[in-house]
Amino acid sequence: MSDVKKVVLAYSGGLDTSVILKWLQDQYRCEVVTFTADLGQGEELEPARQKALQFGIKPGNIYIDDVREEFVRDFVFPMFRANTIYEGEYLLGTSIARPLIAKRLIEIARETGADAISHGATGKGNDQVRFELGAYALMPEVKVIAPWREWDLLSREKLLAYAEANGIPVEMKHKNGGAPYSMDANLLHISFEGRHLEDPKAEAEESMWRWTVSPEAAPDAAEYIDLEFEKGDVVGINGVRLKAHEVLAKLNELGGKHGIGRLDLVENRYVGMKSRGCYETPGGTILLKAHRGIESITLDREVAHLKDSLMPRYAELIYNGYWWSPERRALQVLIDHTQGYVNGWVRLKLYKGGVSVVARDSKDTLFDQTIATFDDDGGAYNQADAGGFIKLNALRLRIAGKKGR
Amino acid sequence: MSDVKKVVLAYSGGLDTSVILKWLQDQYRCEVVTFTADLGQGEELEPARQKALQFGIKPGNIYIDDVREEFVRDFVFPMFRANTIYEGEYLLGTSIARPLIAKRLIEIARETGADAISHGATGKGNDQVRFELGAYALMPEVKVIAPWREWDLLSREKLLAYAEANGIPVEMKHKNGGAPYSMDANLLHISFEGRHLEDPKAEAEESMWRWTVSPEAAPDAAEYIDLEFEKGDVVGINGVRLKAHEVLAKLNELGGKHGIGRLDLVENRYVGMKSRGCYETPGGTILLKAHRGIESITLDREVAHLKDSLMPRYAELIYNGYWWSPERRALQVLIDHTQGYVNGWVRLKLYKGGVSVVARDSKDTLFDQTIATFDDDGGAYNQADAGGFIKLNALRLRIAGKKGR
Amino acid sequence: MSDVKKVVLAYSGGLDTSVILKWLQDQYRCEVVTFTADLGQGEELEPARQKALQFGIKPGNIYIDDVREEFVRDFVFPMFRANTIYEGEYLLGTSIARPLIAKRLIEIARETGADAISHGATGKGNDQVRFELGAYALMPEVKVIAPWREWDLLSREKLLAYAEANGIPVEMKHKNGGAPYSMDANLLHISFEGRHLEDPKAEAEESMWRWTVSPEAAPDAAEYIDLEFEKGDVVGINGVRLKAHEVLAKLNELGGKHGIGRLDLVENRYVGMKSRGCYETPGGTILLKAHRGIESITLDREVAHLKDSLMPRYAELIYNGYWWSPERRALQVLIDHTQGYVNGWVRLKLYKGGVSVVARDSKDTLFDQTIATFDDDGGAYNQADAGGFIKLNALRLRIAGKKGR
Amino acid sequence: MSDVKKVVLAYSGGLDTSVILKWLQDQYRCEVVTFTADLGQGEELEPARQKALQFGIKPGNIYIDDVREEFVRDFVFPMFRANTIYEGEYLLGTSIARPLIAKRLIEIARETGADAISHGATGKGNDQVRFELGAYALMPEVKVIAPWREWDLLSREKLLAYAEANGIPVEMKHKNGGAPYSMDANLLHISFEGRHLEDPKAEAEESMWRWTVSPEAAPDAAEYIDLEFEKGDVVGINGVRLKAHEVLAKLNELGGKHGIGRLDLVENRYVGMKSRGCYETPGGTILLKAHRGIESITLDREVAHLKDSLMPRYAELIYNGYWWSPERRALQVLIDHTQGYVNGWVRLKLYKGGVSVVARDSKDTLFDQTIATFDDDGGAYNQADAGGFIKLNALRLRIAGKKGR
Repeated sequence: MSDVKKVVLAYSGGLDTSVILKWLQDQYRCEVVTFTADLGQGEELEPARQKALQFGIKPGNIYIDDVREEFVRDFVFPMFRANTIYEGEYLLGTSIARPLIAKRLIEIARETGADAISHGATGKGNDQVRFELGAYALMPEVKVIAPWREWDLLSREKLLAYAEANGIPVEMKHKNGGAPYSMDANLLHISFEGRHLEDPKAEAEESMWRWTVSPEAAPDAAEYIDLEFEKGDVVGINGVRLKAHEVLAKLNELGGKHGIGRLDLVENRYVGMKSRGCYETPGGTILLKAHRGIESITLDREVAHLKDSLMPRYAELIYNGYWWSPERRALQVLIDHTQGYVNGWVRLKLYKGGVSVVARDSKDTLFDQTIATFDDDGGAYNQADAGGFIKLNALRLRIAGKKGR
Repeated sequence: MSDVKKVVLAYSGGLDTSVILKWLQDQYRCEVVTFTADLGQGEELEPARQKALQFGIKPGNIYIDDVREEFVRDFVFPMFRANTIYEGEYLLGTSIARPLIAKRLIEIARETGADAISHGATGKGNDQVRFELGAYALMPEVKVIAPWREWDLLSREKLLAYAEANGIPVEMKHKNGGAPYSMDANLLHISFEGRHLEDPKAEAEESMWRWTVSPEAAPDAAEYIDLEFEKGDVVGINGVRLKAHEVLAKLNELGGKHGIGRLDLVENRYVGMKSRGCYETPGGTILLKAHRGIESITLDREVAHLKDSLMPRYAELIYNGYWWSPERRALQVLIDHTQGYVNGWVRLKLYKGGVSVVARDSKDTLFDQTIATFDDDGGAYNQADAGGFIKLNALRLRIAGKKGR
Repeated sequence: MSDVKKVVLAYSGGLDTSVILKWLQDQYRCEVVTFTADLGQGEELEPARQKALQFGIKPGNIYIDDVREEFVRDFVFPMFRANTIYEGEYLLGTSIARPLIAKRLIEIARETGADAISHGATGKGNDQVRFELGAYALMPEVKVIAPWREWDLLSREKLLAYAEANGIPVEMKHKNGGAPYSMDANLLHISFEGRHLEDPKAEAEESMWRWTVSPEAAPDAAEYIDLEFEKGDVVGINGVRLKAHEVLAKLNELGGKHGIGRLDLVENRYVGMKSRGCYETPGGTILLKAHRGIESITLDREVAHLKDSLMPRYAELIYNGYWWSPERRALQVLIDHTQGYVNGWVRLKLYKGGVSVVARDSKDTLFDQTIATFDDDGGAYNQADAGGFIKLNALRLRIAGKKGR
Repeated sequence: MSDVKKVVLAYSGGLDTSVILKWLQDQYRCEVVTFTADLGQGEELEPARQKALQFGIKPGNIYIDDVREEFVRDFVFPMFRANTIYEGEYLLGTSIARPLIAKRLIEIARETGADAISHGATGKGNDQVRFELGAYALMPEVKVIAPWREWDLLSREKLLAYAEANGIPVEMKHKNGGAPYSMDANLLHISFEGRHLEDPKAEAEESMWRWTVSPEAAPDAAEYIDLEFEKGDVVGINGVRLKAHEVLAKLNELGGKHGIGRLDLVENRYVGMKSRGCYETPGGTILLKAHRGIESITLDREVAHLKDSLMPRYAELIYNGYWWSPERRALQVLIDHTQGYVNGWVRLKLYKGGVSVVARDSKDTLFDQTIATFDDDGGAYNQADAGGFIKLNALRLRIAGKKGR
C-alpha cells in the first residue's frame, strides 16, 4: 500500500463503489472525497450524498455535479463530427464518458489537495485504462488506487460478504443468486455485459433492454424529424433550438420510442480479450445517420475520404482511453477544421427500429444540380473531358499490360 | 473517328444500347459483336438476341452469358470479405459488376478478333471509367468507343428522334414526357438516379422502389435465419448448402420480403460531382452485417483493425473503377489471407427493414469465456498485469504532463 | 480557340515562354500580361522585362515580383514541417513552387481583369496539373491556355523554326543539335530532365550538376553548423537570426559547398508515366535531417507516428498539384498544430556529400534522462510494470496460439 | 518465484547472461538450457560453450547455432522488401533479430521439454517485449523469466559484486569505473546505447564506432557496385551470385570500408520513453537505397504508394516486437506479393559515407522511354488527354470555389 493522504473516488452510490469507499477508508486510512456525476444516466444522485455522509465523508468532500451539457458539447459532439464507430458497430457510449470523469476527478483532486484518485473499474476491462490514462495525462504525479486489481474480493460472494460485514446496504437485485448485468449508462447510451451474455451464441433476453421498446412494440406509423446542423453539431430539432444535452435527450426519447439503437456484438478490448456487449444508443444512432447525411452534401469528396480513412484510428484512440493524448487532440484539430461548412438540415424517418435519411439541404451544399443532371446541362460539364481523364488514369495500367502483367 | 474494324458492345437490349448499336454501324461502318450478361438483373435476355438479329448482327457475334455464379463468387464475395462500404453507406452494387463486364468484353474481343469495345455509359458517370479502366488494363491496345462522349444525341428528345428515324422500337415508359429513372440492376442491387431524385431535398417516391416492400408493408413477425460461413464467404442458409449466386438470390428474397436494404444518399463521383442515388441491396445488407458478426469472434483484433483501416481505400478503388489494378489485387491478397479462420455461423433477425445479429459461434472463435468472465476466472487472467500495462502506456503522457503540456 | 480577352502568362523570359507569348498574341489575338517571379532561381529578371516590351506588352502589364520570402515562409517551410518526401527520395522542389505561381497568376488576373492564364508546361508533365488545379481552385471560371497541348510545335525543331520566323532570339545552347536539359530552379532546388537522362541505366554526367560541387571536390574538412528552430521552422543559423528565405539561401550555400543534396531517381508522374529526374536540393536536404532531429526530442511518439503515417498522402497531394485543395489544407492544420513545441537547436556535420545530426537540445525536450538511464533511476521507472505491459499485449496472441494459430 | 522445471536461456556468454545463468540456477533451482546464436555478430561462440560447461550445464543442453542464413533470408530481406524505416531513420537492426531468437528459444524448449525461457534484456527496453511477445505467440503456455525485472542487481556495482562472489570472470572493460556502452550486434548492424550517449546534446565519440571507418578516413576514390535483384531480394553483387547472408556480409564490408551507415538519433521506445542510440548499418544502408532504386522502375505507382503508406505501421510492428503477430503476417503477404516483378540491377556509388543510385535497369521495367521522351513520341501519348484529366480532377475544386470556399 503506497502512502496516500487524500483520495478522490468516482462514486456512483451503488454497491461496488460503496464497498470501495469503505475499503479505502480501512486499507489506506486516508481521507476520501467522493465525486458523483450526472451524465444523464437517469438515476437520482442525492442518495449517493446520503450514503457518503453515512460513511463519514465530510460534506465539503462530497461532489455531485451535473455535467450533462459539458459531456455532450465537449465530448459526444466532437466525437460524432468524425462519424466515429469502433469495429464497424460500436458508438463508444461508455468510452466517451470516461475522459470527462477523469478530468473532473483531477480537477477535484487539485481543489481538495488530494494526491490520489480511485475508481470501481475492474482489472479486466477498458474503463480502468480510460480513467487512469486520463488521470496520468492531466496530473502526472497522481497516485491511482484500483481496488479491483488490489483486493481479494474478486468474486461476487466475497463482495457481498464484505458489504454485509460492514453494514453496507445491498439491494435485492444483487441477492438473487445470479449476478446482475454489468451496466453503464449516460446520455449517449446504456450498456450491458456479463451474465448469460458471456455466451455469444445466446440471444439477449428481451427483458434486458431498458431504454428502447422492441421494434415490434414500436408505433405502427413512421415519424419524420428534421435536424438542424451548425458546424457539424445538431443545434435544433423540428425547428426548436436546443442545447447540446437537450438535443441528445430529445433524440433518445424519439429513438427509444421507435425501438432504434439496439446493438449486440462481440468487441475487442484494449486489454487483449474479446467481450460480448449489448448497447442501446437511440439518440446516437440517429445522430450518426444525420451527420453523414449533412456531410454528404457539404463536405468535399477528398476531405470526406480523408476523414473516413482517419476514423478507425480516431475511434481506437477513444476506445482505448487516449482522449487526453496529444495524438487525439491533433486529429481533433483536423476534424473540427473540416466542419466549418457542415451546416444545414436533414430529414429522417424513424420506424420500427430503423432510421433513414430521406432529404437534406444546405446553403453550403456542394451538390450542383446543373452539373449532375441527366438533362442537357448547357455546357456546364464537357463530357469529352472524361475521355482524357480516363486515358491518363489508365496509362500506367496500359504500360503494365503491355509488359504482360 | 478512329479506324475500327470490329467492336464488342455491352448490349442490354434496351433503348439506349440499341441506338448505340445502330449508331456504331452507321458511324464506324464496322462489324458489331453484342455481349449481353445475365448478372441476375431479373430480365429476359432472349429479346436482346432477337433485337440484335434485327440489326443484322451475325448469330455468331451475339454473346448472351449467364455470369451470375462468377459474379458473386469472384467479385461480390471477395469485396464483402473486406466489409466494403463507400462513404459510410453505399454497398457498391453497380461498381462491382462493371469489372466483370469489362473482363468479358475483352475476352470476347480476343475470341472474335475485335479491336474495340463500346458501352452505353454517359460521360458524366462512374461507369464509363470502370468499363474503360478495366478494358485498358486487360487489353492495353484496345480502342474504346463511348458514344455518349462522341455523338450529339445528348438530350432524351434527340435520342428518341434517332430511334424513331431508324426504326428502333421505343417502349411506352420512355415516351410519357418525363424520362424514366436511370436504373441498374444485378444480383447485388438495383439503383435509381435522375428524375426528381436530382433534388436532394425531395424524398424518394414509394412507387420507385422495386425489389423491397416498404418496411411498413413487411410482415409483422420477425424472421430468424442462420448463415454458415467458410473462409469469409456464406456457403449455406438455414442448414442448406448453396452456391454463391444462390446465396445472394436467397438473401435478396428474404431481405426484399422484410423491407431490408433501401438506401437514399448523395455520393461523390470519381469524375468530380456529387450525385443523388437510391439503392436497394437486400441481400448485401444482410451479408455485411453477418460477415461483421462472424469476424467479430474469429478475427484477431489487430487484423480486424488493419482491415478497417484499409477498407476506405479499397472501397474507393472499386468505386473508382480500379478492380483490375495492381493495387486492388495487392489489397485483395491481404484481405483473402485474413479470411482463413472466418468460419462459423451467425443468426440474424429480420424485421421491418432492420437486420440484426443476435448470436454467433465458430470452432475458430477467439472469444475465451474463461478469460472474459465476470466470475472468478481461476487465474486465467491476472488483473494486476493491468497496472503495469497502464503505467507504461501512460509513461509518455506523464512525461509530457510534467513539462506542462 | 475559346474566346479570350486577356491572358496572364507565367513568363520566364526564356525561349519556350517567349514563343508562347508570340503564339498567344497571334492565335488568340488577346492582350497578354506577363508574370515573372523571382523564386530564387538565380537568374536576372530584367531581361524578361525587355523581351516583353519588345513583344509589345504594355509596361503596366509586366509583373516582375520577388516572392522569395513568401515562397519559403508559406510554402517550403510548411511542407518541411511534415518531413515531406515523395516516393522515399524526392524533396518536391518543383512541386512546391507551382502553387505559389498559380496564386500570383490568379491575383494578377483579378487585378488586371484578365479572364485566362497560360503557362509553358508540357502536356506530359506534372506542372500543367499543378498550375491548372491551383488556378481553377482559386478562380473557378478562369480559362486556361496550355499551348503545348494545343499547338503543333511539338518537336524542338518546329519550335526553333517558329522562333526564327518570328524574330525571337535563340541562345546558343538551344542550337547545338541536342536539346538542353529541361531544368527548373528555385530557392529549394534545381532539377534536370531529358536528354540522355531519358535512359535510366545511364549515369548522369558530372558536368550537368550546377549548384553543388561533387562530393569528391568538396572540402576535406567537415563543417559543423547549428540550426535554431521555432515551431518547426528554422529561424537562425549559427546564432544569427534570419528570415525564411535567407535561411534557405544560406543552407544552399553550405550544402552546395559540401556537395550535399544530389539525387538521381525515377519517379512516377501523376499523368501516369515514369520519368527520370536529377535534382540538387542542398539546403532542403540539410533542413529535412535537422527537422527530424529536433522533432525526435520534442514530439510525442504517437504524434510523430501519426505524422509519419500521413506524410506519404500529404506528399502525394503536393506532388500531384493539390496544394490549394481542402484536403491539403485540412492536413496542414493538423501538421501545424503539432509543431507548437518543436523548438530548440540541432547540430549537424556536413562532409563530402553527407549531412548528419550529431547533437540536439530543447527547452521542450521530452527526453527524460532520469528515466532513460542505464544507471539506478531512483524509482523513476518501475521495471516490474513491463511484465504486465507485455502480458496484456500478448494476451490476444496467446489466445490465438492456444487455438493452434 | 513460479514453479519452473527447465528454462532455455538466451545466452551470449558475456557477463550479464553469465550472471543470469548462475542466478537462475540459484533462485529457480531448475535445469538450464543455453542457446547461443551466431547472427553474424562477429564474436567467437565456442567460449560460450566452455563457460556453460563450467556452470555445470549438460553438453546436450548447450545449443550453439549458426542462424546467419535464416536471419537474413527469412527476417532481414523480408523486412527490406517494405523499405522499412522506423521514425524516418532507424533500420531496425536489433528489432529484426529478436523474433528469430524467440523462435529458436521456443523450438529448443519444445525439443528439450522446457517450460520456461529467459533472457538478459532489461525492464526498460524494447527487447524484453520482442522476446516475450514472440515466445508467448509461439508457445502460449510458456513461462518467462526476465531477471532484470525480478532481481535486485539493478546497478552495475551490484552485478559485478554478484559475479565476483560467484566466481564469474569479469573482463577488464567492465571494471574501469565507467560502464561500457550497451551494445548489440548482428549481420545487419551494431548498436550503442548508454554512457555519455544518454545526453542527446553530446556528440558521439569517434572511438565508439566499430564497424565503419569515419567518412574522413574512407578511401579518396569512389567505388561503384552492381546489385542484382530477384523478387525484391539481392542475389548477386558485381556479377557474383551469393547466398542471403553472404550478400549482407559483403555489403557490410563495402559499406564499412567507405564509412557508410552511421546513425545517431533519439528514438521512441515502445515502453514509453525516448532513448538515444547510435547505429552502424553499412550493408543495410546500401540495401535500402538499392531496393528503392530497383522498385522505382519495376513497381506500379499506386502499389509503391500503397507500400509507402503501410510502411510506418509495418515498421512500428517490428520495432514493438510484433513480428509473430497475425497483423504483421498479413502485411507481409501483401508486401511479398508486390515483389514478383522487382527484378533487375542497380548501380551504386559508394564514397566517404555516402551511397547513391546512379543507374538501374530491369527486364520488368515499367519505364517507357517512348512515352516519357521530350522528343516527338509518334503519338504514344496524346497531350490533349491531359486537358480532360485536369478538368475533371479540378471539378470539385471549381464547384467549391464557386461557393466562395
